[in-house]
Amino acid sequence: MHGAVIHGPGDIRFEERDDPKILRPTDAIIRTVVTCVCGSDLWAYRGTDPITEPTPMGHEYVGVVEEVGNEVTNVKPGQFVIGSFATSDNTCSNCLAGYQSNCVHREFMSTCQADYVRIPNAHGTLVATDEMPDQEFLPSLLALSDVMGTGWYAAKAAEVRPGSTAVVVGDGAVGLCGVIAAKELGAERIIAMSRHASRQKLAREFGATDIVTERGEEGIARVKDLTDGVGADSVLECVGTKQSMAQALHSTRPGGNVGFVGVPHDVAIDGQELFFSHVGLRGGPAPVRGYLPDLIDRVLTGRINPGKVFDLTLPLDQVAEGYQAMDERRAIKTLLTP
Amino acid sequence: MHGAVIHGPGDIRFEERDDPKILRPTDAIIRTVVTCVCGSDLWAYRGTDPITEPTPMGHEYVGVVEEVGNEVTNVKPGQFVIGSFATSDNTCSNCLAGYQSNCVHREFMSTCQADYVRIPNAHGTLVATDEMPDQEFLPSLLALSDVMGTGWYAAKAAEVRPGSTAVVVGDGAVGLCGVIAAKELGAERIIAMSRHASRQKLAREFGATDIVTERGEEGIARVKDLTDGVGADSVLECVGTKQSMAQALHSTRPGGNVGFVGVPHDVAIDGQELFFSHVGLRGGPAPVRGYLPDLIDRVLTGRINPGKVFDLTLPLDQVAEGYQAMDERRAIKTLLTP
Repeated sequence: MHGAVIHGPGDIRFEERDDPKILRPTDAIIRTVVTCVCGSDLWAYRGTDPITEPTPMGHEYVGVVEEVGNEVTNVKPGQFVIGSFATSDNTCSNCLAGYQSNCVHREFMSTCQADYVRIPNAHGTLVATDEMPDQEFLPSLLALSDVMGTGWYAAKAAEVRPGSTAVVVGDGAVGLCGVIAAKELGAERIIAMSRHASRQKLAREFGATDIVTERGEEGIARVKDLTDGVGADSVLECVGTKQSMAQALHSTRPGGNVGFVGVPHDVAIDGQELFFSHVGLRGGPAPVRGYLPDLIDRVLTGRINPGKVFDLTLPLDQVAEGYQAMDERRAIKTLLTP
Repeated sequence: MHGAVIHGPGDIRFEERDDPKILRPTDAIIRTVVTCVCGSDLWAYRGTDPITEPTPMGHEYVGVVEEVGNEVTNVKPGQFVIGSFATSDNTCSNCLAGYQSNCVHREFMSTCQADYVRIPNAHGTLVATDEMPDQEFLPSLLALSDVMGTGWYAAKAAEVRPGSTAVVVGDGAVGLCGVIAAKELGAERIIAMSRHASRQKLAREFGATDIVTERGEEGIARVKDLTDGVGADSVLECVGTKQSMAQALHSTRPGGNVGFVGVPHDVAIDGQELFFSHVGLRGGPAPVRGYLPDLIDRVLTGRINPGKVFDLTLPLDQVAEGYQAMDERRAIKTLLTP
């Protein structure tokens, strides 16, 4: 089989790789139906995260089960499945507390831009649909395996409630999915921070009521203008830089909440500043597994359409171009078809 | 009148000072009935917080109203009153959101170790009791103006819920009051971290079910032992140092919450570490004003007795000895009687 391998910054190759095999009785092998490139893949592509050896890439997937280990009873060969980028047994105390992405048996997926993928902890990770979904739903179902689930968690961690005001920092796929989540969770006012016309348009389509193009101090001032001078109830931080975290913390009202889902890179939060802000802060890899049944239902009933974040579709063997287009911000997110 | 003034590290003097006067129509002047020394006063006393000029001290008080400004209608001369260390108008949007300690008109009290005190924003800060309380209640009512309200906020910010497990980091007056709060809010298991026999005893009396004497990695391991290996649901951070914050964050289960009320000194929280912990974090000066009616009721009905944290009582003119005893940890908290 073939899959994407990163050899160095900017160097993604589509290569022959060994077929994955069942290694443990809780594994499954799936044939990838669609996969994609994540904004977080760009940390390595841009050289921010170190690459020490040729490394397979990709953590988002939907597919058809090919083979399962002895202990996998929840899905069977032939079924269409969706799973989280973070695998889980879905039975440990962290899973039961709703934090499947902190499962004691967690493994992060990392080989999904490929024809076939081994899914560890398949029994607690994969969710099958009742039947093979129509082609039109594939992008949205794929989005659930990470970006839509992550946007959902950002909104939950930021405690978006009916009637509240939410700000979304970051106009990548996760931020845009965060807009969907804020709307679904009942936010009355949703302020998307974006400077890109195409992303602004999608944000509005997803439910944003206001767009703020300014950043830094000006962006904070603009949000305050829109929120009676105090800041928003909930802020979804969907980038992971110093600047975006500062933007988020300073855009939140005292007693409000920041949900941060961009993996923080070189971010340190000043204790005293956080203290006097009265802002609540929770982040982390999204517990996608817990959200899947509900989100699959929202997709298949046509209530949400996060698949719209894919504005470039390429055959899997052109994965390198998929990275480049996202790196150059020509594409929001690249869908890959094996 | 006379009051405490700090001239430099370790140098507290009881001096003659000008009588306070009504400066604004929302002010009140009270005659102090009892006041006290706060653990946070020691930051200046120990030279951690800079002292640039002789500065009056004290932010905790109960007293009898002497005089009120034109716009103060909620209390009147002769009434016994309790107020927060942070004044508030109790009408701005931050106040209405329950964060009176982030009121747009907030002023921190800072002259209360004195015979008389001017209370800014008296209309939104002071709460009068129905009648003059019995002498026996004075220490507990005084504790409400800061330490008990702060312990309460720590427990609320850490989202202590019925049946949950709480850890209290810090065995000062605030930490001990945090134990009371955790118990009142229904925590089933309350783990107090303390190495001092007298404080351990008081913690147990207030409701602690377990005492952990270890600190650092060992302390974290001990908490994990007591919490099925995952950490506590809620951790109250009541110190404000790097070490205590690390202790708190690492003692919390994924998805749990840290409420931090020790003013952070030289504390920076690593974004990536917080991210992968899934821990929720909220701190700040406690919105005592919002809690006062409920807490006054709990004190006057004998349900809670936070006044037990005062283990040294001195006449106000011996305030310097009150600081020294706390600095040397001979006393948990010093009550001062004018």
